[in-house]
Amino acid sequence: MIYPFIKQINKVNQPISIVLCQTSHPGNIGATARAMKNMGLEQLVLIDPLNFPSPTASERASGADDVLANAMVCDSLEEGVAHCQWLFGTSARSRAFPWPQLTPKQAAEKILELSKHGQKVGILFGPEQSGLSNDQLQHCDFHIAIPSNPEFSSLNLSQAVQIISYEIYQAILNQDETKAPQAIDFGNKATQEEVAGLLEHFERVAIAIDFLDPKHPKKLMPRLKRLFAKAQLDKEEVHLLRGFLKLANPHTGG
Amino acid sequence: MIYPFIKQINKVNQPISIVLCQTSHPGNIGATARAMKNMGLEQLVLIDPLNFPSPTASERASGADDVLANAMVCDSLEEGVAHCQWLFGTSARSRAFPWPQLTPKQAAEKILELSKHGQKVGILFGPEQSGLSNDQLQHCDFHIAIPSNPEFSSLNLSQAVQIISYEIYQAILNQDETKAPQAIDFGNKATQEEVAGLLEHFERVAIAIDFLDPKHPKKLMPRLKRLFAKAQLDKEEVHLLRGFLKLANPHTGG
Repeated sequence: MIYPFIKQINKVNQPISIVLCQTSHPGNIGATARAMKNMGLEQLVLIDPLNFPSPTASERASGADDVLANAMVCDSLEEGVAHCQWLFGTSARSRAFPWPQLTPKQAAEKILELSKHGQKVGILFGPEQSGLSNDQLQHCDFHIAIPSNPEFSSLNLSQAVQIISYEIYQAILNQDETKAPQAIDFGNKATQEEVAGLLEHFERVAIAIDFLDPKHPKKLMPRLKRLFAKAQLDKEEVHLLRGFLKLANPHTGG
Repeated sequence: MIYPFIKQINKVNQPISIVLCQTSHPGNIGATARAMKNMGLEQLVLIDPLNFPSPTASERASGADDVLANAMVCDSLEEGVAHCQWLFGTSARSRAFPWPQLTPKQAAEKILELSKHGQKVGILFGPEQSGLSNDQLQHCDFHIAIPSNPEFSSLNLSQAVQIISYEIYQAILNQDETKAPQAIDFGNKATQEEVAGLLEHFERVAIAIDFLDPKHPKKLMPRLKRLFAKAQLDKEEVHLLRGFLKLANPHTGG
């Protein structure tokens, strides 16, 4: 332990703490800080990290320096989670002993619910090589298993943090009734009349260039109608296509 | 580019490709391979990577060596996605131009649906510093925005891949519960290569008829790209439009 342990428990105001136990690689600590901050989480707790602080951690934090600076560094799990009412332990492995097990999404909803009631929650992640020990898992109220490829199930530590943090952020977003509006602007959609004008123009040009034989039209125009319907043309697009048609065959009129 | 480009398109049997564009850090390529394999994805496509293969990539892949070994390495995006009917582009930023935008979960459900119908899907991720360019995004049928902290929104590349891959795996796990597949016929959708051919043909004709000034192209081609993306052209429609273009200006070739 490089860091002197500082009694920071009273400082922990954040409802949700990400707790990394005996992390070996400082890069994973930095990447975790970034992943947390990307999803609006701030409180990192480091239990007996092998190498922290470290330039590698700072580099991989990529701007989430505040999360690293405010990290609580402790010798023991007991110290690190003393402020929490609820502990969630992540585990890829199915364990011999039965325990309430949640998916990341289920866990996120529960964590959000607890936070709303003023409860402090810690989410535990084990060492890179071994994951949380059975003893550490038995500290937890719930286990979270990230579903993964049975033949290659071990996620990188910071990736696991990313998924859990992402689901928590999703849960927060989903509770708001006002979801992000779709980024499609329907305001400029062409009228039926404008699209019909385009189709007629296309038909005139198609006949003029011998692409369409009026006596044997086949399905050209229905196909074009369908294409334009699928595209949900806006006024500018109609204007653009008519400009093209006009120059492609000036004799057929605008 | 260290790797010689090998025509591997016919080898791509996987329904879903993760496509990394101009990746700077080999560690991110390795971490991406691991994240993919954790979630059961196998096909990695690397467009003009700065440094690959690399020991750093292999180290961070942490056992997903097969994903790296089978990665398709290409000079251009066009080569890398020629086999795909559908492209999804990831973007944190809200863009000036409107585009069909999906959350990771919505995108995953759509991607799974497309895969079930035998469609090949590419999911594009941009360079670490800048993300996908507007031009690259305009190749895409859909954009995916990962919701994140507005004040710290830029995820690490491999973390973004992890979230999308996780949601795809979730969608696969959840599919048993979902209803019967929609009665949409995707069977005939044009490939990216076919749409690119149509766009080039249109551009040649547009220049020949003085509709497009190559020195001042304005936004003609991006607008057309967007229009065709919205229309989700099938092979017959591409054929129809190219037939029209050929007759509209026979001198520009087919």
